[in-house]
Amino acid sequence: MSKIRVAIAGGTGYTGGELFRILLNHPNVEIVAATTTSSAGVPVAQVHRDLIGETDLCFGTELNDPDVIFLCLGHGISRQFVDTNDIKPSCRIIDLGNDFRLDGDYAGRNFVYGLCESAKEDIRKAHDVANPGCFATAIQLAVLPLAAAGKLNDEVHVTAITGSTGAGKKPGETTHFSYRNDNISIYKLFSHQHLAEIKKNIVKVGALDAEPKVNFVPLRGDFARGIFASVYTKAAEGLTLEDYQKIYEDYYAASPFVFLSKEGISMKEVVNTNKALLHVELHDGYIHIASAIDNLIKGASGQAVQNMNLMFRLPEDTGLRLKPSAF
Amino acid sequence: MSKIRVAIAGGTGYTGGELFRILLNHPNVEIVAATTTSSAGVPVAQVHRDLIGETDLCFGTELNDPDVIFLCLGHGISRQFVDTNDIKPSCRIIDLGNDFRLDGDYAGRNFVYGLCESAKEDIRKAHDVANPGCFATAIQLAVLPLAAAGKLNDEVHVTAITGSTGAGKKPGETTHFSYRNDNISIYKLFSHQHLAEIKKNIVKVGALDAEPKVNFVPLRGDFARGIFASVYTKAAEGLTLEDYQKIYEDYYAASPFVFLSKEGISMKEVVNTNKALLHVELHDGYIHIASAIDNLIKGASGQAVQNMNLMFRLPEDTGLRLKPSAF
Amino acid sequence: MSKIRVAIAGGTGYTGGELFRILLNHPNVEIVAATTTSSAGVPVAQVHRDLIGETDLCFGTELNDPDVIFLCLGHGISRQFVDTNDIKPSCRIIDLGNDFRLDGDYAGRNFVYGLCESAKEDIRKAHDVANPGCFATAIQLAVLPLAAAGKLNDEVHVTAITGSTGAGKKPGETTHFSYRNDNISIYKLFSHQHLAEIKKNIVKVGALDAEPKVNFVPLRGDFARGIFASVYTKAAEGLTLEDYQKIYEDYYAASPFVFLSKEGISMKEVVNTNKALLHVELHDGYIHIASAIDNLIKGASGQAVQNMNLMFRLPEDTGLRLKPSAF
Amino acid sequence: MSKIRVAIAGGTGYTGGELFRILLNHPNVEIVAATTTSSAGVPVAQVHRDLIGETDLCFGTELNDPDVIFLCLGHGISRQFVDTNDIKPSCRIIDLGNDFRLDGDYAGRNFVYGLCESAKEDIRKAHDVANPGCFATAIQLAVLPLAAAGKLNDEVHVTAITGSTGAGKKPGETTHFSYRNDNISIYKLFSHQHLAEIKKNIVKVGALDAEPKVNFVPLRGDFARGIFASVYTKAAEGLTLEDYQKIYEDYYAASPFVFLSKEGISMKEVVNTNKALLHVELHDGYIHIASAIDNLIKGASGQAVQNMNLMFRLPEDTGLRLKPSAF
Repeated sequence: MSKIRVAIAGGTGYTGGELFRILLNHPNVEIVAATTTSSAGVPVAQVHRDLIGETDLCFGTELNDPDVIFLCLGHGISRQFVDTNDIKPSCRIIDLGNDFRLDGDYAGRNFVYGLCESAKEDIRKAHDVANPGCFATAIQLAVLPLAAAGKLNDEVHVTAITGSTGAGKKPGETTHFSYRNDNISIYKLFSHQHLAEIKKNIVKVGALDAEPKVNFVPLRGDFARGIFASVYTKAAEGLTLEDYQKIYEDYYAASPFVFLSKEGISMKEVVNTNKALLHVELHDGYIHIASAIDNLIKGASGQAVQNMNLMFRLPEDTGLRLKPSAF
Repeated sequence: MSKIRVAIAGGTGYTGGELFRILLNHPNVEIVAATTTSSAGVPVAQVHRDLIGETDLCFGTELNDPDVIFLCLGHGISRQFVDTNDIKPSCRIIDLGNDFRLDGDYAGRNFVYGLCESAKEDIRKAHDVANPGCFATAIQLAVLPLAAAGKLNDEVHVTAITGSTGAGKKPGETTHFSYRNDNISIYKLFSHQHLAEIKKNIVKVGALDAEPKVNFVPLRGDFARGIFASVYTKAAEGLTLEDYQKIYEDYYAASPFVFLSKEGISMKEVVNTNKALLHVELHDGYIHIASAIDNLIKGASGQAVQNMNLMFRLPEDTGLRLKPSAF
Repeated sequence: MSKIRVAIAGGTGYTGGELFRILLNHPNVEIVAATTTSSAGVPVAQVHRDLIGETDLCFGTELNDPDVIFLCLGHGISRQFVDTNDIKPSCRIIDLGNDFRLDGDYAGRNFVYGLCESAKEDIRKAHDVANPGCFATAIQLAVLPLAAAGKLNDEVHVTAITGSTGAGKKPGETTHFSYRNDNISIYKLFSHQHLAEIKKNIVKVGALDAEPKVNFVPLRGDFARGIFASVYTKAAEGLTLEDYQKIYEDYYAASPFVFLSKEGISMKEVVNTNKALLHVELHDGYIHIASAIDNLIKGASGQAVQNMNLMFRLPEDTGLRLKPSAF
Repeated sequence: MSKIRVAIAGGTGYTGGELFRILLNHPNVEIVAATTTSSAGVPVAQVHRDLIGETDLCFGTELNDPDVIFLCLGHGISRQFVDTNDIKPSCRIIDLGNDFRLDGDYAGRNFVYGLCESAKEDIRKAHDVANPGCFATAIQLAVLPLAAAGKLNDEVHVTAITGSTGAGKKPGETTHFSYRNDNISIYKLFSHQHLAEIKKNIVKVGALDAEPKVNFVPLRGDFARGIFASVYTKAAEGLTLEDYQKIYEDYYAASPFVFLSKEGISMKEVVNTNKALLHVELHDGYIHIASAIDNLIKGASGQAVQNMNLMFRLPEDTGLRLKPSAF
């Protein structure tokens, strides 16, 4: 099989960098273009300096007839990119921004919401994909099995903490090391933009009549990579912990990346991998789910490659068996 | 006025160290003894090495007739200490463990629960004090004003994250740097031992008929000092944000250490101080309170000194105007 | 005695913030002005948010007839400030920048180089002071006793690591949390701007004929506060470790802030204090000195206050007995 | 080709864990045994919890007839292991401890010192290999090109900082998070045990008459992974920076893992990879080399696999194209 010709648009940021790090070692991919508005002519390894010795690729302006384009453009810019570039209809698009997550119909394309574990078959048939948000991934992986099992009966309480890479590469006050080191703070309390895609997909997966209430407290963490989500909701009458564990194990039985741990989890167990770890406990009438992902991989670029694998009928985990950093 | 003769029992640990750091600069205190079961004869500055040049005190076994003893003994050992040491009845005791928090009557003494902001007059009259737990302090400071105002009408949702010093000086798996750095995990989910003192004092302050339900998710944070608590409960009908702010400002009007911030807070704003910062927001029918303290100071040794100041009729903030580390 | 009227110019940055944190609790000081070009009218506690509840002071444009002005203006701006402001001749100036360190004669004033431990009497008589740089302080405290004792006979090898606050408040690539966390890098290799003041003062203290060669490798550390310097040079014939220890103890016998530790030191032992800790070892013909300070306190604002205390004939440690953060 | 049957002895520690993380994805390897004295019967993924879902392997006591055994036994235990286990003569051994680095002749075997870049052909022919130390690798990669080029004419000054994983899994005072976070300290000043293997190999590579003097200051860093070494020595007369760069580029021309960066480097650029980055500068008569590796990969388990690849005539980088964590 000839290699998939991949273009990365907007690859100077964090998610673009992760795509290079993953795709340079993907056995079925050739990166044919890395476009940017700002750094044309600059070697990729000069921007992502950990890639010294691994690629001679330079940023440029031409797409070079790719089979698929990954858009890493910052939220709101993807539509503009589709409008102003002459992209062949046969070229697939995987958007890592939020432009097509809530409404996937655009410019004659239909972007499927690409949470791999909830829509695998749809993604396999999709021409274009809207990659989910990072918090949205961690939280949905904790909630969807309940929704699918008809066991989501009350509002959902979520507190989730994210690394500094979630805030992007542009330096600012809350990503200054002197501020962030050893610090914790709340942002976008009860109003994070990922709530909309979370609720929409819960309704779809659970075939619900109405959106559930999700109370979401996002925290800024003093680490660079990772998301750890604490999620709980009223337990259903009569279900035991074993019943709940079975719901989760069944839901993820076919997933190569999502695992239920019988013991408590910690965030670093998934950092620098495409895996998600879940752990459930039952207390005082509440079912609690801890969920951990790497925000840049399963929460962004890894899941985007997982989507590409599905779309191109490759084994889902091709190029995604990543060595955990663990420490 | 002659100085208060202070003994510190069990001063080789973190809360003992903080007592030395605070009391060495307290204008009304003379530390007359630092007892230990393990390090008799060892200079205090050899155990707490940041104190080099600040004290010639050595650990020993004699109490030296103190006016007050601070017990920093680890939970469960305080009762034993009282039983086995010949402490004069006139000598006051401030216990930093949890032995007397739920039931203060012991060995002819009555330990008053020493959350300064909720029981200032009782503490002024107290002979002995049970110092509150660190999480218990951060969470109660967020909840008590609502309880006192009769506005606590539903269960309370709490997620709070603590530094590694909360786990004590003895090294273990979850305080190993290689584990804890850049990591987040949950422990004692919905079952933390501070829940009992929290509920008991809420009932007292709010004159409630029954204990409120408090769902508490404790997180291990990847920092050494500080607690950041996120607390929310159903808002009362018809109360505006301004109404809530007034409830908090009124409740803490006489406190030299607790402040309501109109803007969002971050944990480091209180680190290395005896202060607590609170911030309230109103969303979707919930009142949310962010609360930040230093776990070792306002959450332990600082509050213990604040209690001593109250008991000895000194200005409440004597020796506690500490320079914030801020970064 | 009436209080010293203090103005802080350029107090929105890190060293300005530290001056507020120290001086608000200084018993002999009244802060009468905090000037700024950018934030006039803004409360100091809104910029330095850890000061909530501790001061109602606002930034402004008037100096309000101070007895002493601290200049926290960024390097190169101090001269301009002196030129363009109508400062009374009687008003003293303590400059925290580097404008007057190498040449103290300016605008009819003579700025004395204010490394307190090497020029205490000169500072007591000085009208104006140029406060030393942070690296310059840590390194000189390690080297000066040798120079003063006539035992500096060869080039000096220095590697020193500093916290992110050393790079200032303005965010940039190398202070972005995602870059700096868990990272180490070199900057200004063998060419750091503090070398000039270090060499100049070594010559003065040692009454040397020529500047010593100082090979200085500055490292960016992944922490916010502190400097740890590793310094070594050829040992003098025949001197034992005890001889060297005596040289250091004698040199700092009158200092309330500099201490020789017989055991190895770690940086956090001085963080959030005005102390310096030194430790010497003798190996393979080299005398090695480890030196640790807080870059913002002994390396900047704390030493500036120490200089003020000397200039105003207060006890040198007034307002500078700071609680270590320790963790 | 049939897969290489690999046994890992002592795989519960950090280097053992890294071997699992690497070898589980190595295309030519089958892990047939993981022996341990303490955890027989326990799943590997229960000890190395990031491996949940990636392996069903359990720790055991049988070696299961491997083609090669990796010894991860802690220094001093490897000889004992060879003595007490009935290892077939045909089975190769790669020792990650220091038992055979200085003297490779033992029990009828000859352990070749396995710094891949300095002894590639010897390793290809070796039956057994002594894997170099982590500091030893970082420092030698900086120094060997000079030695090989005959340009090492004076003593070498080294300061290198290492992560907490370098200290092993057993918790202790200096790996306690509360101690290590935001802290820097020196250990084994001028006397680190890696100096012997460094000097021995420099002599060999440079064909020197005598061991060079190497002044080595090891620092404990406040991060988990990585080593950053700062190395300098007197420059040779007449050599330009370009001359030096050519020496390094030539020396590493055939290496898939060692690269000279023209721009300054930072440690995280190599973390979680088997790469080493070098950067050279010329100042004041000194040639300075910055060198960065991941202590657990190029400094231990990755280099061990690189050695295995060489010994089994596989492409040197098989299974070692690891995604950098970068942040």
